[in-house]
Amino acid sequence: MNIVTPRRPSGFPEYLPADQIEFNRMLSVIAEVYNLFGFTPVETPAIELAEVLLAKGGGDTEKEIYRFTKGEKEYALHYDLTVPLARYVSEHQNDLAMPFRRYQIQKNWRAERAQKGRFREFVQCDVDVIGSNSVLHDAEIVSVVSNVFDRLEIGKYIIRISNRKLLAGFVEAIGLESKTNDVLHLVDKLDKIGSDALTVELEKIRLTKEDTEQIIDFVSITGSPKEVLEQLEGLSIENTIFKSGMSEMQELLFTLTAANVKPDCYSFDLRIVRGLDYYTGTVYETNLIEFPEFGSVCSGGRYNDLTKYYSTADLPGVGISIGLTRLFAALQEVNKISNKIASPSRVLITQFGNKKVLARAVEVASELRAKMINTQVYLDEAKLDKQFKYADKLGVPYVIVIGEAELESNKLVLKNMSTGDQSVVTLTEVVELLEI
Amino acid sequence: MNIVTPRRPSGFPEYLPADQIEFNRMLSVIAEVYNLFGFTPVETPAIELAEVLLAKGGGDTEKEIYRFTKGEKEYALHYDLTVPLARYVSEHQNDLAMPFRRYQIQKNWRAERAQKGRFREFVQCDVDVIGSNSVLHDAEIVSVVSNVFDRLEIGKYIIRISNRKLLAGFVEAIGLESKTNDVLHLVDKLDKIGSDALTVELEKIRLTKEDTEQIIDFVSITGSPKEVLEQLEGLSIENTIFKSGMSEMQELLFTLTAANVKPDCYSFDLRIVRGLDYYTGTVYETNLIEFPEFGSVCSGGRYNDLTKYYSTADLPGVGISIGLTRLFAALQEVNKISNKIASPSRVLITQFGNKKVLARAVEVASELRAKMINTQVYLDEAKLDKQFKYADKLGVPYVIVIGEAELESNKLVLKNMSTGDQSVVTLTEVVELLEI
Repeated sequence: MNIVTPRRPSGFPEYLPADQIEFNRMLSVIAEVYNLFGFTPVETPAIELAEVLLAKGGGDTEKEIYRFTKGEKEYALHYDLTVPLARYVSEHQNDLAMPFRRYQIQKNWRAERAQKGRFREFVQCDVDVIGSNSVLHDAEIVSVVSNVFDRLEIGKYIIRISNRKLLAGFVEAIGLESKTNDVLHLVDKLDKIGSDALTVELEKIRLTKEDTEQIIDFVSITGSPKEVLEQLEGLSIENTIFKSGMSEMQELLFTLTAANVKPDCYSFDLRIVRGLDYYTGTVYETNLIEFPEFGSVCSGGRYNDLTKYYSTADLPGVGISIGLTRLFAALQEVNKISNKIASPSRVLITQFGNKKVLARAVEVASELRAKMINTQVYLDEAKLDKQFKYADKLGVPYVIVIGEAELESNKLVLKNMSTGDQSVVTLTEVVELLEI
Repeated sequence: MNIVTPRRPSGFPEYLPADQIEFNRMLSVIAEVYNLFGFTPVETPAIELAEVLLAKGGGDTEKEIYRFTKGEKEYALHYDLTVPLARYVSEHQNDLAMPFRRYQIQKNWRAERAQKGRFREFVQCDVDVIGSNSVLHDAEIVSVVSNVFDRLEIGKYIIRISNRKLLAGFVEAIGLESKTNDVLHLVDKLDKIGSDALTVELEKIRLTKEDTEQIIDFVSITGSPKEVLEQLEGLSIENTIFKSGMSEMQELLFTLTAANVKPDCYSFDLRIVRGLDYYTGTVYETNLIEFPEFGSVCSGGRYNDLTKYYSTADLPGVGISIGLTRLFAALQEVNKISNKIASPSRVLITQFGNKKVLARAVEVASELRAKMINTQVYLDEAKLDKQFKYADKLGVPYVIVIGEAELESNKLVLKNMSTGDQSVVTLTEVVELLEI
């Protein structure tokens, strides 16, 4: 037999059980919060028709797309969840209640250059509201993100919020309308390059020193959200786009306050622009306070015309995406993934070859499972010592031992694997202890 | 703008929200039961190196595999979860506690000819124990399957169990050893073609009339599991393989009885062989009593040498797979998927443009969500009538109305959408009603 070395292509992560369990816990938290806000789950095929997936053209991403021909069709694996959402909403719009609130947690594929923190297969957790212009949805998205990161328990975070209309309106107001896109793209780099380099870059696109200073001053406004809005008002900018952005930010703040979103978990930050051209209003990025080097772990914003390549319907939307594969890898890197439990079992029941003991072990397991207690029976012939080692390797918290004496007395020996405490108990007592 | 018709390639299913919610419910039930028995979740990449995935050669499936070149590598999408499991176990064997109990719920891809009930992208739900020869695991798999189908609530089912050693040993005992594989393959077709056609087929491979009759009689043995075993014993077959199969079936029955698996949900059925050559002992198929036309909805068995293409380690295993995409489509076909609820929300809170009402609506929503009650606020400007229609279209069971009077009294109007009953209640009362 010719043995092939078992291996994966680079950029395609997979986890050992303990990490997979922790990864799944994080996925469940995210899905639970999305459900909590009444977003409905959607799943689209991994494979789309290339002609449909690439309707808008792939731009820079196009060469990263996995595409192939099979039979007479050309197919492509989706590289994000936004294009499939646009296709889904367009295809099914007559069957969906609008506004359509959906979440989608799936793998995506991009043939990026393999490097640390970059994956070719990665899970994104997207949540969007389609079919409404109301900025109240934009505010709710902040509540969703805040709820997710509170429950993930990976430390303090800050949701940085802006509205592209503010900077765009300001740039227009100072007479630089023709350079709006360039300015927004450059400001988007500010976090990475710093304000000195931004100054150089702005001068490269032929802004005067004064204009450059004005822009740097504008995006450097800080303070509480209320203070930021007050300072912006103080600028007395007479520009329709800017004013529209102001009123949206005011409504956003009003709603966040009403919803009791903790004030220390979000900020109004004019440096947030999001590079992608399709954002048209509110934009978000989220950083972990303890790990600024991770960059934004949850980003998004409001966009118009999601479906313009597939439908003439006017369907604006707002949403965010959490890149869980990337976040998880970053947390592993800083040793923040500490789960060592490699089994969902709450208890392992040992047994010896004796048929009566086996029968009792299997019966006890059935009764525990009927109470929804995850239970494993050791089903191979092995010394008790080996069975305990196995439980220990899996990280199972409790072990039940049944011997001849316990068969007689109809009791069980229960061992707490972390304390080493051992006691003789009834099945009812085990259920009371382990029931959730 | 050039509009591309939004559409999917054929054979790639996706669901509208109500169906997706029901599909996910079924997935959750399956995962929950797998966890209940202490199987740990594993997920492998969708894309494998073609050279690795196809180490054993694809046989008939090979032309159905989606494979493609990107850069210098040749990749392939996995077409089942068994080959990725073999690769995973081989690659990580030093890090896994043996026996290794894992479940894996993922999409697979096969470019099958498009036809009803056949999908090119389909979810399989696999559960396996690797690294043990003990038939006690084979018995536990029956408990797992029985637990899953009890909880899925899709009607009565029968898990049909056999052991390939019984038929193989019998064939050897009557002197037809050289034709064992042919006979097993033909018997596997019995359910589809009937015993008359089987007789013809057996005669085609030059079995005598007497041998043919003996085989037909053998696989036609019926009765309770105990009766089947008694009849088999009555045949007094002196053959090592047969006897090994007998003792495994006896141990299986003993364990199923101890585990209190309901006797009416499984049978010992010698017609079950499973076409796949890699099964070596116990084999299972599961049929829905009400829908025999679905064929087997959950199949599997015991196999040796799972990892032989990747490792010299001796890793036998046993497991089953539920083809959920196919099962779900079959249930849809017979109108057994009846969920009409297109939102996870338990309650929808209406609101009017009034800022105070909005603030109260958002606040109430936050408090309900803090109690883990899935809640949606209607965040667009609309007449109350339209908000109710929206709730109705989504199938949300309760609607809360907050008006000026309720702001004053600090109460809420709660409407039960199925009965139409409406009452004035406190927030605490709503929580008590809706908390799970």
